[in-house]
Amino acid sequence: MTTTTINKAELKSLIGPGKIFFKDDPDFDPAAFLSFGTDRTKVYRPDFEILAFPTNTEEVAKIVKYAYNNDLAIVPSGGRTGYAGGAVAKNKELVLSLSKMDKVLDFDPFFGSIKVQAGMITKNLHKEAEERGFYFPVDFASTGSSHIGGNIATNAGGVRVVRYGLIRQWVLGLTVVTGTGEILEFNGELLKNNTGYDLKHLFIGSEGTLGVITEASLKLTVKPVDNRVLLVSVPDFPSILSLFKETHQVKVPLLAFEFFTEYCLGKVKSHLSVPDPFSAPSPYYVLMEFEIGNESDDEKLFGFMESITEKGLISDGSLAQNSRQAETFWKYREGISESISIEYTVHKNDISLPLRNMEPFLREMESLLNGKYPGFEIALFGHVGDGNLHLNIVKPKELSDEEFFKKCKNVDPDMFSLLQKYNGSISAEHGIGLLKKDFLGFSRSEAEILLMKEIKKSMDPKNIMNPGKVFG
Amino acid sequence: MTTTTINKAELKSLIGPGKIFFKDDPDFDPAAFLSFGTDRTKVYRPDFEILAFPTNTEEVAKIVKYAYNNDLAIVPSGGRTGYAGGAVAKNKELVLSLSKMDKVLDFDPFFGSIKVQAGMITKNLHKEAEERGFYFPVDFASTGSSHIGGNIATNAGGVRVVRYGLIRQWVLGLTVVTGTGEILEFNGELLKNNTGYDLKHLFIGSEGTLGVITEASLKLTVKPVDNRVLLVSVPDFPSILSLFKETHQVKVPLLAFEFFTEYCLGKVKSHLSVPDPFSAPSPYYVLMEFEIGNESDDEKLFGFMESITEKGLISDGSLAQNSRQAETFWKYREGISESISIEYTVHKNDISLPLRNMEPFLREMESLLNGKYPGFEIALFGHVGDGNLHLNIVKPKELSDEEFFKKCKNVDPDMFSLLQKYNGSISAEHGIGLLKKDFLGFSRSEAEILLMKEIKKSMDPKNIMNPGKVFG
Repeated sequence: MTTTTINKAELKSLIGPGKIFFKDDPDFDPAAFLSFGTDRTKVYRPDFEILAFPTNTEEVAKIVKYAYNNDLAIVPSGGRTGYAGGAVAKNKELVLSLSKMDKVLDFDPFFGSIKVQAGMITKNLHKEAEERGFYFPVDFASTGSSHIGGNIATNAGGVRVVRYGLIRQWVLGLTVVTGTGEILEFNGELLKNNTGYDLKHLFIGSEGTLGVITEASLKLTVKPVDNRVLLVSVPDFPSILSLFKETHQVKVPLLAFEFFTEYCLGKVKSHLSVPDPFSAPSPYYVLMEFEIGNESDDEKLFGFMESITEKGLISDGSLAQNSRQAETFWKYREGISESISIEYTVHKNDISLPLRNMEPFLREMESLLNGKYPGFEIALFGHVGDGNLHLNIVKPKELSDEEFFKKCKNVDPDMFSLLQKYNGSISAEHGIGLLKKDFLGFSRSEAEILLMKEIKKSMDPKNIMNPGKVFG
Repeated sequence: MTTTTINKAELKSLIGPGKIFFKDDPDFDPAAFLSFGTDRTKVYRPDFEILAFPTNTEEVAKIVKYAYNNDLAIVPSGGRTGYAGGAVAKNKELVLSLSKMDKVLDFDPFFGSIKVQAGMITKNLHKEAEERGFYFPVDFASTGSSHIGGNIATNAGGVRVVRYGLIRQWVLGLTVVTGTGEILEFNGELLKNNTGYDLKHLFIGSEGTLGVITEASLKLTVKPVDNRVLLVSVPDFPSILSLFKETHQVKVPLLAFEFFTEYCLGKVKSHLSVPDPFSAPSPYYVLMEFEIGNESDDEKLFGFMESITEKGLISDGSLAQNSRQAETFWKYREGISESISIEYTVHKNDISLPLRNMEPFLREMESLLNGKYPGFEIALFGHVGDGNLHLNIVKPKELSDEEFFKKCKNVDPDMFSLLQKYNGSISAEHGIGLLKKDFLGFSRSEAEILLMKEIKKSMDPKNIMNPGKVFG
């Protein structure tokens, strides 16, 4: 059935008034309507006619059951902050927005866990946790818009993965609606439950292809007492890895270990008008954040600074003296993406590699670009402690946008081959969505992809859940 | 094909000499032979005739392929320290022992990760990590015998789960051989890899039913600088939960939070001849272990002791003054299982519950026993911070073992119903294996069990991998 043959009245009455809208609805601004079926990739044109705002799991199940019975595809829509087209509806799918499902459902003050609806905005979850004396540690730039359900469906990470891991680590239980409209509750709020396969892990990172995540029970922790931010300039790439190795021995918890190149710093300086961090330029910079519990931890950090200086791992370094300076240090790192995107045309890549393979990979990547794509420059930064590089290719001035992106289509498979050679991943955080689905084979074997398809079939036999994303 | 129709010479030549044995082999002591097809449950009689000792993944694949082509079932055999019959071969299966696969394959000193063969004994992994300046934190009583592959196949936990989580959290990548003899490599050694479903999580806790785990890449951490052990007596059960809640605010990492009853302490005292920890008895005792980095952490602990005393959460308390006293404190908790099992006949249960549901569950459980099973006593202890209770039922003197276990067969479903009511799990750590497979429905829905079966079919279409375990 296509959306044009849908009985509008029947569909509207499914879950009560004011919850299902059609494209021609006078209540809705057309641009606002379409925004629910797109994400931050901005390369796909949304094209859909039905938009649903269920308020609870049962209503989601009713919609999915209807879709199942009427062969209607569904795109789950969260905060739409993705960079892979996972939330794009461009084939007349029904867009199922979770944005009216943003409530706290339960809280355990003893264990320290919270159960929320999947449409809760991540920043609101941070607030709800803090109001209850706890802390939800998964944090990144888009938490003011992203939904917790979307975070789980894409296994979000962020800037403090070295300390807190990915969101997968904080999910105790999930309530989901599969592609048949069946409600499944995985694991409740238990920490330990060894009773067969842990199916919730299939949904974490599934990008909406197995069903809709409607509720989540999350483990909470407590906020660090204090932190210290350290910015250092590093003479060469191997020293970055040695520096990371040294952090294991500081005996003060490492919260973040980020790096960027002189090229990136230059863009931030000119865009955000921030001063040079050091008197002399350096090919690489590393930002480290440590968790501090008391003065003795500060002493340990001073000792660490001395030791890495003596070992020649850094050329210069500065410990932020106050929270304002710490903010400035973070700006060098967090301002990169914005600074480059605004002034230049950029082809983004979010990749990961075993740490020790990074240098040979980058060397080969550079010679590849120099040889086959003269003038292409790399803006390189990222969560190097997690093995995660943001490798952004910057368009040379003399190329048109069109020519540039056409050439990038050839760069991608070349780069992905290199990643494969060095046991890396074509998507560290952003997921596969539409953008990288043709390249999935560079990171997953044919046998694995076949298994994924069989697993999808078992939960979504009619292939109505976010079809065409990730694979197939 | 049954094992009697197997061509012995053909099978023996499969992976080279000295690696495959038959029951009638003169090289093998019959009892030693049979020990490879059993575990610590001791309630099942092993019955099998072929025992293989592959030395690498390719040899495992050859054996599984042979088994697949000849309809021969396989039981993967690790350290056989399980308590659920998961490693029992009682239906003429081929027993595939991983014990000759115990080598370190790779190590990354920068990231801090190690790749090992699955047959490595857990304690040896601890040693290998320490020799390299790192620490593998998953630890429990049986690490001197258990294999790392078995730990992963059962998602092992242990005494420091409140700090380090279950082993699932430390697995970066797995190499497995599925039920068709295909080798799959999941994720390599990457921390971040959002490229479709994370299939390794299906194998973690699968108890050998999807295939054989042959290699594992594991994340390492660093050893705590020091620790402190605190033993307190607690007047009632709600105070235990409040006490746990208070630990979130100490700002010193909690390594363990264990509890036991006066009944358990009595058994340990009489069996191990240890002195009373406190002058007055108390219904409950809690052992806490904290990670200490410096003197200021010690001050925080003193403050914590003061605060919980003032709040009336504890009746008495003692901070171990040295490592010997710390060991004695741990003996109260770790000696329980042995002390009870040696003097009494016991029906063991390893269950988990949301913390806040523990008290009503225990109250109902007690009244159930008092009403229907007079004379049955409960030895209650466990990792209460993880929601994990070891609820052991002790045989009344007047019952024979046979009568007792017959009655326990009726207690189990009663208890599991109660667990279901309070959103608990019938197996927190031990898994399902043979022992609890008839009760799986108390913790997993019919729809979930159906999905598990479909997933198994996709990886093990002929159902030769540990058939009859966990489900069906």
